[in-house]
Amino acid sequence: MNKETEGFSQHISQQFNAELEEVRTQMLEMGGLVEKQINDAVNALINGDGNLAEKVRDSDQAVNQMEVQIDEECMRILARRQPAASDLRLVMSINKIIVDLERIGDEASKVAKRALHLVDEGQSPRGYVECRHIGAHVRKMVQDSLDAFARLDSDLAFAVAREDKIVDQEYKTAMRELVTFMMEDPRSIGRVLNVLWVLRSLERVGDHARNIAEQVIYLVIGRDVRYKGLKSMEATIQEDQGEVGKS
Amino acid sequence: MNKETEGFSQHISQQFNAELEEVRTQMLEMGGLVEKQINDAVNALINGDGNLAEKVRDSDQAVNQMEVQIDEECMRILARRQPAASDLRLVMSINKIIVDLERIGDEASKVAKRALHLVDEGQSPRGYVECRHIGAHVRKMVQDSLDAFARLDSDLAFAVAREDKIVDQEYKTAMRELVTFMMEDPRSIGRVLNVLWVLRSLERVGDHARNIAEQVIYLVIGRDVRYKGLKSMEATIQEDQGEVGKS
Repeated sequence: MNKETEGFSQHISQQFNAELEEVRTQMLEMGGLVEKQINDAVNALINGDGNLAEKVRDSDQAVNQMEVQIDEECMRILARRQPAASDLRLVMSINKIIVDLERIGDEASKVAKRALHLVDEGQSPRGYVECRHIGAHVRKMVQDSLDAFARLDSDLAFAVAREDKIVDQEYKTAMRELVTFMMEDPRSIGRVLNVLWVLRSLERVGDHARNIAEQVIYLVIGRDVRYKGLKSMEATIQEDQGEVGKS
Repeated sequence: MNKETEGFSQHISQQFNAELEEVRTQMLEMGGLVEKQINDAVNALINGDGNLAEKVRDSDQAVNQMEVQIDEECMRILARRQPAASDLRLVMSINKIIVDLERIGDEASKVAKRALHLVDEGQSPRGYVECRHIGAHVRKMVQDSLDAFARLDSDLAFAVAREDKIVDQEYKTAMRELVTFMMEDPRSIGRVLNVLWVLRSLERVGDHARNIAEQVIYLVIGRDVRYKGLKSMEATIQEDQGEVGKS
């Protein structure tokens, strides 16, 4: 390569890196926004705050727009830069993660709508403690999955996948209690059902955080760990770390 | 290009086309499988057929494996062939559609699990007519979205998006009736709730079919119509067809 083409290819590569960095930053911003939406939606529910609930419900469109924009940017990078190896993995991971982030935004919006129903119909007699607890849990999972992405930390990503199992258990316990309560007090069915749907949405947020975590593991170690049990997932990560240690 | 390199590039391009065709076929097979799962799950529920329900529940793993495999194939194509324009759109559409197909498989598996609960706890006193009706509706939507993909038919894809609105209304009506029934007969709450979750899953299947339809529209006309209202979606498609007509 002569001096001139070397300078040219450096220039291209700097631009390419800037584009990757830009789309990565946009994704993390989108992540920060949906994390806030989950937090706000649960607070709106617990405090019966109709204004905050409306704000969350209406911010769903902004999240959708971010997804469309980042998606376009990924397509542009694929078409113009034809990335390979870890760059390709980065673009494809972002392309998948934004789908889960958008769905988390959807769930936050659903929680906000249920909060508005409860403002109209009067508080549910049960379930707020569970919503607060599971809400905080899955919000933390979303945060950790994004941190794991930002730091390329496969151990933290694995911890998120492990938490999802715990959330599933907490969710099942809460559901059983609420169903028993409804049988004892049928007049409350309408209101308690709103809380049931909220818990369902929060449990789904946990699933999406786990999906994001699995993409992070794929990004870091280059292996698809979806649909594997936790044990096999952990073994795959350790195997990779062993290989890195050896080299 | 001389004769020799021309032959070489034709050879590459034939191989590339065969790869695209292969991954397209695999996706349609996966689609056929989840369509069958939805059908079987609803039949298992309605007929209280525990064996069929178990079969659907256990076939979820096969669908997951298909997703992982097609995903890998898409990555290989992106890395080795660096497709552009409509080829790139095809690969990326498949890459998104398989996520929705896998989630439809998940929902079918959830329906099957609820069917098994009802085999244990005894039939729900209400909701089967609605499950049969909405189940047939969303199964048709999945089928149509896959046909639209196979034939690159943006009009059929738009029809699927339109149907989703109707399913949402049917779902809301069914939910209201079941909630009223539970209030009148609280002893049935446990069993009716199973049906409620089934309806929720079926409604989600409709959403996923709509997502697939939107990807088909993107594939055919190259424009992202997600999160647009039906009117704006229809106008975008007509605009594109007008342009094709003119050229």
